[in-house]
Amino acid sequence: MGEYEHVLLKRDGDTVTITMNRAARRNSLSEEHLGELLAAFREVGESDATGIVLAGAGPVFSAGHDFADVASRDLMGVRQLLRLCTDVMGAIQSVPQVVIARVHGLATAAGCQLVASCDLAVAAESAGFALPGGKGGWFCHTPAVPVARAVGRKRLMELALTGDAIDAATALEWGLVNRVVPDADLDAAVAELLGRATRGSRAAKALGKQTLYAQLDRPEQDAYDIAVEVMASASQLPGAREGMAAFLEKRKPNWPD
Amino acid sequence: MGEYEHVLLKRDGDTVTITMNRAARRNSLSEEHLGELLAAFREVGESDATGIVLAGAGPVFSAGHDFADVASRDLMGVRQLLRLCTDVMGAIQSVPQVVIARVHGLATAAGCQLVASCDLAVAAESAGFALPGGKGGWFCHTPAVPVARAVGRKRLMELALTGDAIDAATALEWGLVNRVVPDADLDAAVAELLGRATRGSRAAKALGKQTLYAQLDRPEQDAYDIAVEVMASASQLPGAREGMAAFLEKRKPNWPD
Amino acid sequence: MGEYEHVLLKRDGDTVTITMNRAARRNSLSEEHLGELLAAFREVGESDATGIVLAGAGPVFSAGHDFADVASRDLMGVRQLLRLCTDVMGAIQSVPQVVIARVHGLATAAGCQLVASCDLAVAAESAGFALPGGKGGWFCHTPAVPVARAVGRKRLMELALTGDAIDAATALEWGLVNRVVPDADLDAAVAELLGRATRGSRAAKALGKQTLYAQLDRPEQDAYDIAVEVMASASQLPGAREGMAAFLEKRKPNWPD
Repeated sequence: MGEYEHVLLKRDGDTVTITMNRAARRNSLSEEHLGELLAAFREVGESDATGIVLAGAGPVFSAGHDFADVASRDLMGVRQLLRLCTDVMGAIQSVPQVVIARVHGLATAAGCQLVASCDLAVAAESAGFALPGGKGGWFCHTPAVPVARAVGRKRLMELALTGDAIDAATALEWGLVNRVVPDADLDAAVAELLGRATRGSRAAKALGKQTLYAQLDRPEQDAYDIAVEVMASASQLPGAREGMAAFLEKRKPNWPD
Repeated sequence: MGEYEHVLLKRDGDTVTITMNRAARRNSLSEEHLGELLAAFREVGESDATGIVLAGAGPVFSAGHDFADVASRDLMGVRQLLRLCTDVMGAIQSVPQVVIARVHGLATAAGCQLVASCDLAVAAESAGFALPGGKGGWFCHTPAVPVARAVGRKRLMELALTGDAIDAATALEWGLVNRVVPDADLDAAVAELLGRATRGSRAAKALGKQTLYAQLDRPEQDAYDIAVEVMASASQLPGAREGMAAFLEKRKPNWPD
Repeated sequence: MGEYEHVLLKRDGDTVTITMNRAARRNSLSEEHLGELLAAFREVGESDATGIVLAGAGPVFSAGHDFADVASRDLMGVRQLLRLCTDVMGAIQSVPQVVIARVHGLATAAGCQLVASCDLAVAAESAGFALPGGKGGWFCHTPAVPVARAVGRKRLMELALTGDAIDAATALEWGLVNRVVPDADLDAAVAELLGRATRGSRAAKALGKQTLYAQLDRPEQDAYDIAVEVMASASQLPGAREGMAAFLEKRKPNWPD
């Protein structure tokens, strides 16, 4: 795997863990950090891994943008940084692997955006979530995009306008994460959910995940126009053929890649 | 009422129950079964009934597509089947009656899609819901369309990517169904909720239901552009006129058809 | 502040409370009342207030349209009334202030629409919420627009099709309101939440709020296209500059206007 300064990659079986490794800077997302995250997702995306865990080193999951990297930029410079950040969020959704956030601590601003952008998320009881731009100066405009698509509108408004953190139990109730577990059980819970989410044909799962993102947020008929065409094509893939054959022959499937 | 092989129609007062009646095949949705469901919804849609209950015979609500009917089809054959299935979902939303799912057992894949597509749903405590394509080969692309529009995004991802079933209590918490009741109380709960949902002018209710589906999933201003025009026209209908007159005259309304 | 007949305006510090003051008519929304609400939101919108509380006088929050004002109108007359009503909802979302609904009693039809359209909402335990057009004649087409965007689809259908009221606890669970408190604590809870939502730079918060409404209900990439451009520009505003500088210098920010 490639060489990274701010990111750790570790493969364990079919799972690659990408760890944001700028603990001294609360895993804040400088341009270099974002560039490495993008490169890491692309590298793992092209591998034969089936699952990706996004984790953070140190006490915080991620504090979002690195103000030391933003404060001196002009409009075009900030725009470029935000485009890069949006590319990272897009890569999480477009890689063929299932991506799960392992949230052990605070996830704020673009750090909360990362959690909302992952396919799945498991949080430790001591985790917290906030869009802190609401407290003051630089509003969390882009983090609010995926957060709005995970929680209800009134809850989005509360997060975005107050800037205050919600705890893990509230994040679960609002649908921002899939599971909340005692801190000591975090790795086991991540592995358990990711294991169930990565079963079966890798190609079929990848197509499935990517089509979900394509059909969301559209009028229902537009969504069907996408989903029907993909599903008809997908029925001809080896994974679908094997799944149906195994079901009809009452045997365990032998999944192709 | 028409003659059907796979579907039972039974009228009781203003309510017609459409029962999927392929218990030996777990009410799976072969082309013939889907064709009859479409014909049944269209037939009842043109009747003067005010409510439709969608139910399943035997231990399972519906197991979704019938793999025996899918496995041998080519792309165009599967596409045609999925278009027919989508037409059934569209018919449920476009008939003038309120349609309520009576979910007594497992509703999986396109069976879960049926539940998500009905206007309302009541589940027995022993019901379950799954998008099992996530376990293996043929991903539940089209069932995920209405399920995504009923539950939050992270919950959709969990259902679609793991393929595992959620129980009725979870389905209620996530907003996939409106009520969960002890199995013995299912028919009473369906009748109670449907009774409240079918009061008043049939024409006004039909226009109301159809306009809801037209305005959903759109930017709010686009939704208002639809709803304002319909509501202005609707104010001139006999049902609206009678409703307002009765309110102002402090008497019970005599609803027109 | 301007002279109003149906609306009371009261300024307390940085907060203006707009009170619907037609208690004898259950704060129903006649054309005159809607016109004054629109004028009041526009007037306060141009002031230097940072928060707006929308409240109702008497036992009811608002009963929605005034049938005495609707019943005799022709289609074009109703259309004009609904356009005016939609303008009020739009003004709530476009004013630079954070708008919070203070819901002490029943909020029905367009009264429920007002609650759904406010940025935030706090309800007393004795409040209730309904789209009563579902009971009979004139369906709540336009109230269902913002309600659909606050609660899940099955819950919207239940509200819209049955017309029955849900209590405050259910509204909280469904995401229609942000807080439910004992009736005696309502003003304190409104002030507490509004206080946290109005901190910081007023200009940055206004841009934040308005951009949230612009990006909602769109495919995620379209939403990012909006949010990235706004956030890049916003990084150059005095509020963002000061927020970042204060963070980096580990001092309290001195917010510009």
